[in-house]
Amino acid sequence: MDPNAKKTALRMIPYGLFVLTGQAKDGRVAAATVNWVTQASFAPPLVVVGVKVDSNAHAIIKEAKAFALNVLGKEHKDVAYTFFKPLERAGDTIGGQKFRAGSLGAPIFENVPGFVECALVETVEKGDHSVFIGEVKDAGVKVEPSGRPDDITLLLRDLGDKIFYGG
Amino acid sequence: MDPNAKKTALRMIPYGLFVLTGQAKDGRVAAATVNWVTQASFAPPLVVVGVKVDSNAHAIIKEAKAFALNVLGKEHKDVAYTFFKPLERAGDTIGGQKFRAGSLGAPIFENVPGFVECALVETVEKGDHSVFIGEVKDAGVKVEPSGRPDDITLLLRDLGDKIFYGG
Repeated sequence: MDPNAKKTALRMIPYGLFVLTGQAKDGRVAAATVNWVTQASFAPPLVVVGVKVDSNAHAIIKEAKAFALNVLGKEHKDVAYTFFKPLERAGDTIGGQKFRAGSLGAPIFENVPGFVECALVETVEKGDHSVFIGEVKDAGVKVEPSGRPDDITLLLRDLGDKIFYGG
Repeated sequence: MDPNAKKTALRMIPYGLFVLTGQAKDGRVAAATVNWVTQASFAPPLVVVGVKVDSNAHAIIKEAKAFALNVLGKEHKDVAYTFFKPLERAGDTIGGQKFRAGSLGAPIFENVPGFVECALVETVEKGDHSVFIGEVKDAGVKVEPSGRPDDITLLLRDLGDKIFYGG
């Protein structure tokens, strides 16, 4: 396999940006910007996230068996960069973002266009990132969009011409 | 859970469009337009696809244990619509698209900007679509893009304001 062709072909997959969150029983919180996200079923509603094996989010979400995906909006470039690095909670905020615990305990950001909160129903650990499969148990939207919901979402490509995560 | 909030939040996930293909040992070919696709690991390179349980692609790919994702380009709206319905092969074409068998046997379209061919390493069957996890074994790019590879890709939103698959 030509490694350059592999990189380029995989970079043809477009991505949005999300902050993946989880909360351990002892109150520790993980929040990480992710882009490897897709829906994977309607009934039940399943989503898939690729999660870095050596990340706090991986450990905490496996333990808590729940996670949230907070959708970033076009105005949230700075938020995306903030959660590229691991952060600790400060009261009911993390990385400057105020959150509440969702019905499964995962941190839901107050200031994002939408979220889904999921029960972790399966993990497949076969690489440097694991496949976390979640069943959507709760969801919320700040304002019902007048146009396409995916027009609101911050895209990986919105971060700059040279910013990739994939390939 | 509010079903409208769930639908809208899930529709905030942006998607590209791909033709998922597989070839059975007896030569039957499946080809279906899909959008629930994400990379899920760098090493090994893994991709995830959500595949409709009652589709030909699901049956054939499970049997063949291999699949290809053919990336559609901005000019391929008609191709996306063609493979929304099941089709049979006609010689070395399907739905008017000429293909060759990849190194694992999966049909690689001649006229697309790029492809990845994958060994099916895991299936998770928990809903109306299954999660197929593939390890990328081959990849190709027609022309190395001068800009971002994901600028070339046909997006679900490019098909029209009311076209969704998700929610």
